[in-house]
Amino acid sequence: MALIVHKYGGTSMGSSERIKNVAQRVAKWQAAGHQMVVVPSAMSGETNRLIALAKEIQPQPDGRELDMICATGEQVSVGLLAMALKAQGVDAVSYAGWQVPVRTDNAFTKARIQSIDDERVRRDLDAGRVVIITGFQGIDGDGNITTLGRGGSDTSAVAVAAALKAEECLIYTDVDGVYTTDPRVVPEARRLEKVTFEEMLEMASLGSKVLQIRSVEFAGKYKVKTRVLSSLTPPDIPLAQEAASGTLITFEEDNSMEQAVISGIAFNRDEAKITVLNVPDRPGIAYQILGPVAEANIDVDMIIQNASSKGMTDFSFTVHRNEYQAALAVLNEQVKEVIKAGEIAGDPKIAKVSVVGIGMRSHVGIASLMFRTLSEERINIQMISTSEIKISVVIEDKYMELAVRALHKAFGLDQPAV
Amino acid sequence: MALIVHKYGGTSMGSSERIKNVAQRVAKWQAAGHQMVVVPSAMSGETNRLIALAKEIQPQPDGRELDMICATGEQVSVGLLAMALKAQGVDAVSYAGWQVPVRTDNAFTKARIQSIDDERVRRDLDAGRVVIITGFQGIDGDGNITTLGRGGSDTSAVAVAAALKAEECLIYTDVDGVYTTDPRVVPEARRLEKVTFEEMLEMASLGSKVLQIRSVEFAGKYKVKTRVLSSLTPPDIPLAQEAASGTLITFEEDNSMEQAVISGIAFNRDEAKITVLNVPDRPGIAYQILGPVAEANIDVDMIIQNASSKGMTDFSFTVHRNEYQAALAVLNEQVKEVIKAGEIAGDPKIAKVSVVGIGMRSHVGIASLMFRTLSEERINIQMISTSEIKISVVIEDKYMELAVRALHKAFGLDQPAV
Repeated sequence: MALIVHKYGGTSMGSSERIKNVAQRVAKWQAAGHQMVVVPSAMSGETNRLIALAKEIQPQPDGRELDMICATGEQVSVGLLAMALKAQGVDAVSYAGWQVPVRTDNAFTKARIQSIDDERVRRDLDAGRVVIITGFQGIDGDGNITTLGRGGSDTSAVAVAAALKAEECLIYTDVDGVYTTDPRVVPEARRLEKVTFEEMLEMASLGSKVLQIRSVEFAGKYKVKTRVLSSLTPPDIPLAQEAASGTLITFEEDNSMEQAVISGIAFNRDEAKITVLNVPDRPGIAYQILGPVAEANIDVDMIIQNASSKGMTDFSFTVHRNEYQAALAVLNEQVKEVIKAGEIAGDPKIAKVSVVGIGMRSHVGIASLMFRTLSEERINIQMISTSEIKISVVIEDKYMELAVRALHKAFGLDQPAV
Repeated sequence: MALIVHKYGGTSMGSSERIKNVAQRVAKWQAAGHQMVVVPSAMSGETNRLIALAKEIQPQPDGRELDMICATGEQVSVGLLAMALKAQGVDAVSYAGWQVPVRTDNAFTKARIQSIDDERVRRDLDAGRVVIITGFQGIDGDGNITTLGRGGSDTSAVAVAAALKAEECLIYTDVDGVYTTDPRVVPEARRLEKVTFEEMLEMASLGSKVLQIRSVEFAGKYKVKTRVLSSLTPPDIPLAQEAASGTLITFEEDNSMEQAVISGIAFNRDEAKITVLNVPDRPGIAYQILGPVAEANIDVDMIIQNASSKGMTDFSFTVHRNEYQAALAVLNEQVKEVIKAGEIAGDPKIAKVSVVGIGMRSHVGIASLMFRTLSEERINIQMISTSEIKISVVIEDKYMELAVRALHKAFGLDQPAV
């Protein structure tokens, strides 16, 4: 017998029939002897409906009041799921975040969880009840309702699992796991049975949007075994089969893991690159360039500065493509003259492709294999950035699919794991 | 400067435009120097939507979970109204019942308010904020959300006004006050400027459904000046005019009150009468008749037992017309033989007409004027029941409108108050 946390997204909670399916699945796990905690999202479309309503009244909604309103979506979900379980003869009880309580800071609409009390929940579990807790929300030190921001229910589920020291946190979603790359680009893409949380972090932030990135950070920080699996399997499939499906995010580089050096190829073409040419290479220059960009609320992703030559260097970074023009304007108006830069150049037609893998740490030659593969396809590399477990390159966007397919094959990701 | 409580129903909160109107009205009162607390209902249709959703999942919904779900309707309303006020430059803050807190017993779906803390609300009011509190709901001793049952927002508003010792509680509704009788039956019906809470209790329970009856009880118990007024006036009408409109429910028989002996004529034709003939007149007989009826969950309204003759009496009572057949069955199957009664007779085609007035206490002749008026119209009286401030008669239902019009005229209710 173990304590298990299930998380279900808005699609799984989207109608009374689907809610009954969720209840059937949870009941199956409880019948197998597990103590069950369930964290559901709001019914699909509900949070958007509430936000639209709020914006009709106040185009820039007040954060506290918006949280008051949006938190109701999950509150309805937990009540309905408790009813669905009771209707199937399983004792259950629902809690809003403030009832547990799930304590957060007071950053309305994007609060962070600080602590979760487990006393009340444990009492119910010991009494044989399924406990259902609202995702996405908590209570701040002044008793105000807070929400964690979009996708926050993943984070809630992992945080609850951490607080209860759950055996595993299962995130049911509309994909059946984490893949070596996007199957729509590479049909040979394989589902990973396991992935480390560091790899998952790199994959998530690079656009493999299976899990909210903060939930992955939480899982890593508290070493919560988290599994991403399909909510589309019939609720009555054998438990052993379901429990082994999907992708497990582990926090150990254990030896039983797949020995692949690279776990996956991530990519996106949402970015644009900007280069400030002929910048005097002196202390503070990076801040002088990026300070005004940050003040304009423009997020920056990759930042690259080459070694200087003759006291001058080129400074490049990428921004979201939607903010490309705004970033150029900031640089031309506020930066160029001040730092006496040469020219501001830019290109929105780029793509970023990354190879990600925890095995990279102890293997040489990953970078050279990557660069050789791209070279053989005659794809020019415009920028390179590396981390401990990731190498990213910026290329012309029309070569993105070609690069991803070539790299996927070169790193043997289309071969079954040994 | 006074502390004023406003209550708005679901229709007033039915769309973003209407919510903006409510905000404009509240802002007008605050601008006049009042401290404002507002208790809105859920947006019209929302509570029904949530109940329907719950019943899809569990036909007999669990009370605790149903309250969890239904309480969200008012939570959305308070957030939206706070936003609407902020959008108009008025500082405002919303609270769910548990945040105030509004403490109730644990009778889910029909909880009763036990106490309301005023500390947090007063702090906001002193800081110049409009405070918006969910109607309809509270929190029990175990931290569960409870609701007060349909129409409970009226009760919430009056209870909040009592806790804060508000100068007045204004209930905005889709009628513009309490009338001497239903204007659809008697076009000459007049709006009452004042009515005592005892009269209001009799009027409400007899079918003049302007206010939830529990809210009137609350108003009487805590002597809360409560005004029923129209939500359909333009939000920018002069405050003095609005403040004097509608009907004030007072708790004092003050001398400035209208000196009418009778305040109004109430009526309904929802009932059926049942008579148990030739009942032995002995102790316990009323219980032997009505006990099985109550056990079958059938509500009884009027109960009449005449003085006995030769040790035998007739015992009559009225039930809701929908429960007429069920009540007859109970009596024939479980009562008739046991008490050795003669016959069970009944008639569903009846109407109840009542004259109500606090002035009746000190005036003789009300009953005789009522009976003479009905006699002149050749209307036969089947049953009579009286309280301190009310005389009710049961008549054949086809004469109901005729009786109401004749009584309204006979008691001078169509004349302007002096």
